[in-house]
Amino acid sequence: MIGPGVSVVAAGMVRFGERFDAGYDELALGAWRAALESAGGRIDPDRVQAAWLSTALGGLIRREAVTGASLADPLGLYPRPVTRVENACAGGSDAVRNAAFAVASGVYDVVLVLGVEKMRDLPTRASLIAQRGTMSHLWWHPRGATSPYLFAQHATVMIEEGNLTREDMALVSVKNHDHGALNPNAFMRKPVTTDQVLGSAPVCEPLTVLDCCPTTDGAAAVVLCRSDIASSFTDAPVELIASGLATDTMYSHTKSAFGMQLAPTRAAADAYRMAGIKPSDIDVAELHDCFSVAELLAYEDLGFCERGKSGVWLRAGNASLGGTLPCNPSGGLLSKGHPIGATGVAQLCEIFWQLRGEAGERQVEGARIGLTHNVGGNGQVCCVNIARLS
Amino acid sequence: MIGPGVSVVAAGMVRFGERFDAGYDELALGAWRAALESAGGRIDPDRVQAAWLSTALGGLIRREAVTGASLADPLGLYPRPVTRVENACAGGSDAVRNAAFAVASGVYDVVLVLGVEKMRDLPTRASLIAQRGTMSHLWWHPRGATSPYLFAQHATVMIEEGNLTREDMALVSVKNHDHGALNPNAFMRKPVTTDQVLGSAPVCEPLTVLDCCPTTDGAAAVVLCRSDIASSFTDAPVELIASGLATDTMYSHTKSAFGMQLAPTRAAADAYRMAGIKPSDIDVAELHDCFSVAELLAYEDLGFCERGKSGVWLRAGNASLGGTLPCNPSGGLLSKGHPIGATGVAQLCEIFWQLRGEAGERQVEGARIGLTHNVGGNGQVCCVNIARLS
Repeated sequence: MIGPGVSVVAAGMVRFGERFDAGYDELALGAWRAALESAGGRIDPDRVQAAWLSTALGGLIRREAVTGASLADPLGLYPRPVTRVENACAGGSDAVRNAAFAVASGVYDVVLVLGVEKMRDLPTRASLIAQRGTMSHLWWHPRGATSPYLFAQHATVMIEEGNLTREDMALVSVKNHDHGALNPNAFMRKPVTTDQVLGSAPVCEPLTVLDCCPTTDGAAAVVLCRSDIASSFTDAPVELIASGLATDTMYSHTKSAFGMQLAPTRAAADAYRMAGIKPSDIDVAELHDCFSVAELLAYEDLGFCERGKSGVWLRAGNASLGGTLPCNPSGGLLSKGHPIGATGVAQLCEIFWQLRGEAGERQVEGARIGLTHNVGGNGQVCCVNIARLS
Repeated sequence: MIGPGVSVVAAGMVRFGERFDAGYDELALGAWRAALESAGGRIDPDRVQAAWLSTALGGLIRREAVTGASLADPLGLYPRPVTRVENACAGGSDAVRNAAFAVASGVYDVVLVLGVEKMRDLPTRASLIAQRGTMSHLWWHPRGATSPYLFAQHATVMIEEGNLTREDMALVSVKNHDHGALNPNAFMRKPVTTDQVLGSAPVCEPLTVLDCCPTTDGAAAVVLCRSDIASSFTDAPVELIASGLATDTMYSHTKSAFGMQLAPTRAAADAYRMAGIKPSDIDVAELHDCFSVAELLAYEDLGFCERGKSGVWLRAGNASLGGTLPCNPSGGLLSKGHPIGATGVAQLCEIFWQLRGEAGERQVEGARIGLTHNVGGNGQVCCVNIARLS
């Protein structure tokens, strides 16, 4: 429990994808409206006293300054306070964390968290992946260290140590595309086969295109409030019972290990402690599968299975819909898409719907406790949030 | 009071200026070490459980991604959580606000807030001022709307309405350079005369170079903790009794007024209410004088004087050292400098020293309540923090 109790009472997102039909502001507004609509008119927008914006790429891709006012303006929130939180791909979950602290402090009763990103306006050669090699000012930072390369290092080590096969990685992609095909808000809704993943264009050995999440436009929003007033906004509030954030070194050559990630391991341990639960208490999880291998790392870092056993655990069907702990019922980053700043917020939207039994064809039956796992950069930051049906 | 009480127990900064002798990481490390040294060994760095980083220009100027790990790495903080808060020039104060909420929520006992910016590595034509005109993705945003231009609009209106003279603006610069000459950490330590301000190179009518703050490298840090344990770290804790943040429209053509700023006015009202005080209770203030006219706007927005009377109030000597409400004893942005993300944190450092009687030659005698006023962008965001000697 965070302070005296913080609950999620509304959630909304826009369809993720190549959204040339909507600008940055329209995506943000779409998510906000969807969240309000989900509450069936029981949340007066004027009750929202403060907001947190998660968006990552304003400066880097769009050559543009971003402030909290970037959200206040399209949503007409001013003069209300809006803070921009940025923590690479983990910014959405960290924005939820900061907003939850503000509610738990007693300063605000009702707040909004909104994540938004517009990534497909640039040609591929100017995309995040291409820019990754120039993302540090330090002269000794290896040039050309793209995101696929940074995760391929883990895959290489795990395969060489005999704990994983190339086919296990492909299976993650197959599973998540199967799940995403059931999600109307997902970007890539077409199922794929193992052969298709293995045979798709190589990106960085051993990763192929279908091991990598797509560059995506999107937005997602949640409304948080003090748990003791949550029932005035919805009949089925979902309590945010824990939030753990952790950091690790930014550089591959100073990491102490591959085949595991320290920040997610620590963030999860902190979140379990705060929630007073253990990994086996989790009923459904949204994981940061920016690359197929990242989901396998997550199973181990989060304690869903023993170290070195992620491939075995996956092959047994545990992570699939109908399994013991369905992972990424939404389709995850691989199928639903990965609009950087929006991802962590959208993960919490999915958990909100799953715990309330509103996830349609992809519903995990009887889920009462859900977890989001949101990793940033080269595993240098991770935020793990845990929610429970009240 | 914020929740159950949050106090500042240590503060440190590096000398602001053209710091070609130190990189981004060295500046951050310098501020952190200075804060620890200020506590005389009574703060074990391991007691710090989480941190907030304020830095604005990574993407825009340095073409680089920034995460909380950008602070965790040079300071060796990992695996501890670090959140990056960005809210343009008001990011430093908003980082303090978010860190205070986290402490008030009961989740952390001791946290660090650090602001850092490295701005002078680029030639002037690539500086923030030159880039301002491309800072929005919206096609209808006026091109060429630089920061001096945006504040010159206010000056023009105030002068035309007869509430201000060009000489009043120059007096702000003269006063703040006089104050800054007494501050070893200030960038521009040479006093200037009214004639020098009026005769310096024109930037944007009616602003001249000496009406504008210098592009600056710098870093500043504060350690916050639960008020009930503050006495274990220092004999003179300073309580953070209020934090108000507000937003306004981002664009000049949608503003409802010039010659006043809505976001600072609202942020101040919220902070006074939270603190349970009125403007006349303030003993010392650090104001956001990015341009001379901005300090005059602040006197009115903060209620230090009546609307339209800022020039009269200034000329009577109220804002000078020895006056009724000394403003910017540190030298302010005009003399001390303005490393964007560090500014709000450095303002709180100055208030911490002033309230503890540690400000040397620039000490405001008997100050017990201090205020920081930190404005972002085109007045589109403002954070007002208030602190009191415990």
